[in-house]
Amino acid sequence: MKPLFLLLLFFSASSASAAKCSYRFPASAHVSEEARNSINSGKVAYKIGYYMQSLDHFNYQPSGNGKFRQKYLVDDRHWAGGPSAPIFVYCGNEADIEWFANNTGFMFDVAPDFKALLLFIEHRYYGESIPFGGDKDVAFANATTLGYLSTTQALADYATLITDLKKNLSSEQSPVVVLGGSYGGMLAAWFRLKYPHVAIGALASSAPILNFLDLASPYTFNNIITNDFKSTSENCYNVIKNSWKEIEEVVGTKEGIKRLGESFKICNGDGWGQFLAEFIEDWLQYALAYVAMTDYPTPSDFLNPLPAYPVKEICRAIDNPTTGNDTFARMYGVMNVYYNQSGRAGKCFDLAQDLGNPAIGQSQWSWQSCTELILPTGGNNNESIFPASTYNFTDEANTCQLRYGIPPRPHWLETEFGGHDIRRALKRFGSNIIFFNGLRDPWSGGGVLKSISKSIIAIVAPEGAHHVDLRFATKDDPAWLRKVRRREMQIIQQWLDQYYKDLK
Amino acid sequence: MKPLFLLLLFFSASSASAAKCSYRFPASAHVSEEARNSINSGKVAYKIGYYMQSLDHFNYQPSGNGKFRQKYLVDDRHWAGGPSAPIFVYCGNEADIEWFANNTGFMFDVAPDFKALLLFIEHRYYGESIPFGGDKDVAFANATTLGYLSTTQALADYATLITDLKKNLSSEQSPVVVLGGSYGGMLAAWFRLKYPHVAIGALASSAPILNFLDLASPYTFNNIITNDFKSTSENCYNVIKNSWKEIEEVVGTKEGIKRLGESFKICNGDGWGQFLAEFIEDWLQYALAYVAMTDYPTPSDFLNPLPAYPVKEICRAIDNPTTGNDTFARMYGVMNVYYNQSGRAGKCFDLAQDLGNPAIGQSQWSWQSCTELILPTGGNNNESIFPASTYNFTDEANTCQLRYGIPPRPHWLETEFGGHDIRRALKRFGSNIIFFNGLRDPWSGGGVLKSISKSIIAIVAPEGAHHVDLRFATKDDPAWLRKVRRREMQIIQQWLDQYYKDLK
Repeated sequence: MKPLFLLLLFFSASSASAAKCSYRFPASAHVSEEARNSINSGKVAYKIGYYMQSLDHFNYQPSGNGKFRQKYLVDDRHWAGGPSAPIFVYCGNEADIEWFANNTGFMFDVAPDFKALLLFIEHRYYGESIPFGGDKDVAFANATTLGYLSTTQALADYATLITDLKKNLSSEQSPVVVLGGSYGGMLAAWFRLKYPHVAIGALASSAPILNFLDLASPYTFNNIITNDFKSTSENCYNVIKNSWKEIEEVVGTKEGIKRLGESFKICNGDGWGQFLAEFIEDWLQYALAYVAMTDYPTPSDFLNPLPAYPVKEICRAIDNPTTGNDTFARMYGVMNVYYNQSGRAGKCFDLAQDLGNPAIGQSQWSWQSCTELILPTGGNNNESIFPASTYNFTDEANTCQLRYGIPPRPHWLETEFGGHDIRRALKRFGSNIIFFNGLRDPWSGGGVLKSISKSIIAIVAPEGAHHVDLRFATKDDPAWLRKVRRREMQIIQQWLDQYYKDLK
Repeated sequence: MKPLFLLLLFFSASSASAAKCSYRFPASAHVSEEARNSINSGKVAYKIGYYMQSLDHFNYQPSGNGKFRQKYLVDDRHWAGGPSAPIFVYCGNEADIEWFANNTGFMFDVAPDFKALLLFIEHRYYGESIPFGGDKDVAFANATTLGYLSTTQALADYATLITDLKKNLSSEQSPVVVLGGSYGGMLAAWFRLKYPHVAIGALASSAPILNFLDLASPYTFNNIITNDFKSTSENCYNVIKNSWKEIEEVVGTKEGIKRLGESFKICNGDGWGQFLAEFIEDWLQYALAYVAMTDYPTPSDFLNPLPAYPVKEICRAIDNPTTGNDTFARMYGVMNVYYNQSGRAGKCFDLAQDLGNPAIGQSQWSWQSCTELILPTGGNNNESIFPASTYNFTDEANTCQLRYGIPPRPHWLETEFGGHDIRRALKRFGSNIIFFNGLRDPWSGGGVLKSISKSIIAIVAPEGAHHVDLRFATKDDPAWLRKVRRREMQIIQQWLDQYYKDLK
């Protein structure tokens, strides 16, 4: 069985409610001239702008001295305006920025309370923010054109764009709070650390800034997935754990392949031959990992629509199968819950389909994972819900070298942003960062789970999943989640109060 | 008259005393294999090492994925050793690192008290740390090869080298304090801000981090020089101020040129024709600026040997001339004090000589001044000791564009490191930085002159010059200077105490 090589982070699953609202264009905003259109889907509404961004902030070669169009979204419906009204900035991560805006309801929910301008900045090389004139064939062609895609360049983009936008809004004194989830949360935390003069604070949600090589165990990620299922149902865990061998063995015969295909309702199952096992395993592993990440307390819709508490739903399907009593019939429940809500898979599952969401930049993330964002997750110990396997960085490095012709720099981000000694370093340095983590989220193993100082605060939700706090509030949210969001708002309000006090 | 276009910063004038000492090579140090030789000139002793450094830390293009040999110096004679003994690092600036080591006596003076390892890291593109195999003809050829010369790359070099050296010394827990003077002081302060997990504190001496475009008045620099002379002697100031017109006018006739050349004892003065005025003015302005910067209370030897309080010496020569009573005879005193200590100019001054010290990287500094280190200093108001002139960034930008084919980015460093709002930003962020400034130093106008918080402390010496605190202590040092150094040592000791307390 292949290890899950590249698990993308992202995800802030939520759905925008349909409430109508008026929308006014910012009069003086920097965005106005280049704005293409505005989006208004209920609570989510924004104007689209483009900023001519430096391709390379740290190298003055003529080849890197060019510019590219960086996309951003502005929602000023609730903004107080003037020289010092607050600005909340989402640090875009590895997907189209509109997708993040539509999935980061927290910002739209709280904007009226804070009278804040909302700004969502797209990460370079994702969505429409493609260098080389927007030509993906050129930009993604090789290491020479992909070379400008790095975290430090992305942070510098945000600093430059925010500074310029504030100037154009004549709001130089506006306090900026940066927010982000997953890789975007890492960027938000790092942005506060590196650009304290640009952002007064950061809400870093489910940001695994300690998930780097030699920092976190590569077994932690899958251990957490394992525990999510085991704690839900011991039987469910055992069925899944024991299924892999059975799936692999059954493809030894034609009859076995036929039975496997039929049990999992695969379109043209026979046609996959012996590869059927591998593909079904991929689909199952993908589903189990992402269900653990997004084990939200209310229904959600991101890659696939999901019911509330999807881990529980999967275990219910496994423990009480409807299509038979054997392992395959039980495991079919995983497919049915994750890929077939509202029956949209139709009569059968087409394994030729791409599992990813088209909003996500998979090839760009693959580059980032092969250069500096080395986040080891692939190890499975004997207790793992997945087949036992070791994590081998050398193999990963060799694959990357082959693919891009350059070696990864697995320790660079730790040098750049801190790692081993981050708690000690930040105890006496820095301020105003919230690290939220939900412990059901496999990425929480690489998160900051204990407060570091009075103003570098960890909020830990034992029942929480991947940046659940950044989702839209719903009437069915559990009390703990409402409390988390209230606390985050209180802390942000404290930052703002302190800032305005200092401003006087 | 030309404005002083590029005033280099550097300078920590001092002379190493001749005391002998034993020297042992570090056994486990990373440097041992590559060490070329060791230097021992009394108090100053070090071993030379080379580190294979990444050419571009932020861009993964194959062309920047190469390495270059970065030079560093280690003195472990007084080091306590072990896993957590302190390391003091000099952040090299725009010259050969050995020159800085020999001119930063403070570190050698205090190493025994702190049992500290001393590490001096050469700045990329200076001294021997030249990319492209050390070939200056290639490295300095154009913007493509010079492109990798930027402050952020330099800081990343220091982070990488320090982290690697600590690992190789098995001293991962050693607290690191970074120090630097002038541009090196800017780098030290910025390093603490950007790499708090690598350095626990920074002593930034005479670091004009607020001397950027639109932050500091371009008139401040020359105003301070003016005040240095005016406060020493009103007559001296008037003679200098009124001399420029006279020098320029006299070259209108052959007799005038002859008289000018003879008065200033210029070798073959007639041969310069009308250009004689311009060259003499350059020499005089250079001397007046650098004498103001290095108006030290004890004799020093850097570019040129100087007596104690050289501004006073120059004014004494102007007020009481020995070679005549006219303006030229008086102004000859400037030349004689600055360029002719110990009579080394011989019978006459050779204007064809380069004014710079060969240790300094003038062409590299010119590149840095044309890309991001835009430090406006050239303005002269009506009161200035120099002829009135305005500062025009556009002219400077055009010159740079012509020279290198790329436009300057005058606001980038302010975006990267903060500027306008730095006091407010750092009041609630960061810690453990000392900003030393001597108010006689023209660069102090761009320095941090007020403490920002309990641990971001400004030490201001009204009688001090450019990073005088970093010079070797001498028996003739005034009380205020001894006090400054004692306070710096006390603060550094507090940082260390706190660190070791946290370590337990």
